[in-house]
Amino acid sequence: MSEAEKWMQEALHEARMAAVIGEVPIGAVIVHNGEIIGRGHNLREHGQDATLHAEIMAIQEACEYLHSWRLEDCQIYVTLEPCLMCSGAILNARIPAIYYGARDPKAGAVRSLYQVMNDTRLNHQVEVHERILARPAGEMLENFFRAIRKRKKAEKKARRAAAEKKLN
Amino acid sequence: MSEAEKWMQEALHEARMAAVIGEVPIGAVIVHNGEIIGRGHNLREHGQDATLHAEIMAIQEACEYLHSWRLEDCQIYVTLEPCLMCSGAILNARIPAIYYGARDPKAGAVRSLYQVMNDTRLNHQVEVHERILARPAGEMLENFFRAIRKRKKAEKKARRAAAEKKLN
Repeated sequence: MSEAEKWMQEALHEARMAAVIGEVPIGAVIVHNGEIIGRGHNLREHGQDATLHAEIMAIQEACEYLHSWRLEDCQIYVTLEPCLMCSGAILNARIPAIYYGARDPKAGAVRSLYQVMNDTRLNHQVEVHERILARPAGEMLENFFRAIRKRKKAEKKARRAAAEKKLN
Repeated sequence: MSEAEKWMQEALHEARMAAVIGEVPIGAVIVHNGEIIGRGHNLREHGQDATLHAEIMAIQEACEYLHSWRLEDCQIYVTLEPCLMCSGAILNARIPAIYYGARDPKAGAVRSLYQVMNDTRLNHQVEVHERILARPAGEMLENFFRAIRKRKKAEKKARRAAAEKKLN
């Protein structure tokens, strides 16, 4: 297992922590000198807060740890390609390198919809490494959404059966 | 004074609160049914946290107030065109409309470098109103940076004078 895969396993662990409480499974860790100094997993529904993405929480924890808004000499590992908000936060925190798993064709701002990490008009650029353990990260998301669809289908079926029963 | 200018005055008040403690003067408020439900001003240096932009704090406060990550029927007023992170947060929170003052040619993601609010590939679009009290918002920033340059120049002069004195 490569160094990058080792840290991505930790981000996947965070993603699983989101999944077990019913949140979309996305996780992130920030590494500094071979040590994790920030962790986060998606908590949007539990916190009812649009900013509670894995990356934002990991960045806030890392800034607190280093007593600095500049996360120099750090790498961020995220299971899914970050959205605009999180990509902007990574740029604002001056993180030098990102490693992520699966691409997000609907909202990804690193490769899919935008390529903001390599925009030389901005005052910082980020080295991009993608498809690190992309398969488990993607599968975790697919399983999550499949389970949701299955549950919704079962709920619909139960509602219909209850209505039919009332009719008869 | 228009309705939009009335709320922008409140955002400018937030910006002044940042200025008096030496932070880059940027402020934001979120309005819901004619009432301010979220406020924020830039606190990046005091908090040593790259995510502590005015808009992020205003969004977090508004989400807490409404117990919802969806800020429907809300408007956000910001003194400066938001960066990528804050524009992404506004999109993630599904805020229907943004009003801002001055453009930010170096980092603005609404009109200047990107136009993310009108990107139909994303699952939400935001109505944009710009140049609302742009002059006081811009002047506040200019005065802030002029004062910093003046202070740095004075410090440099004092250092040189001290060195000359030691030499003689």
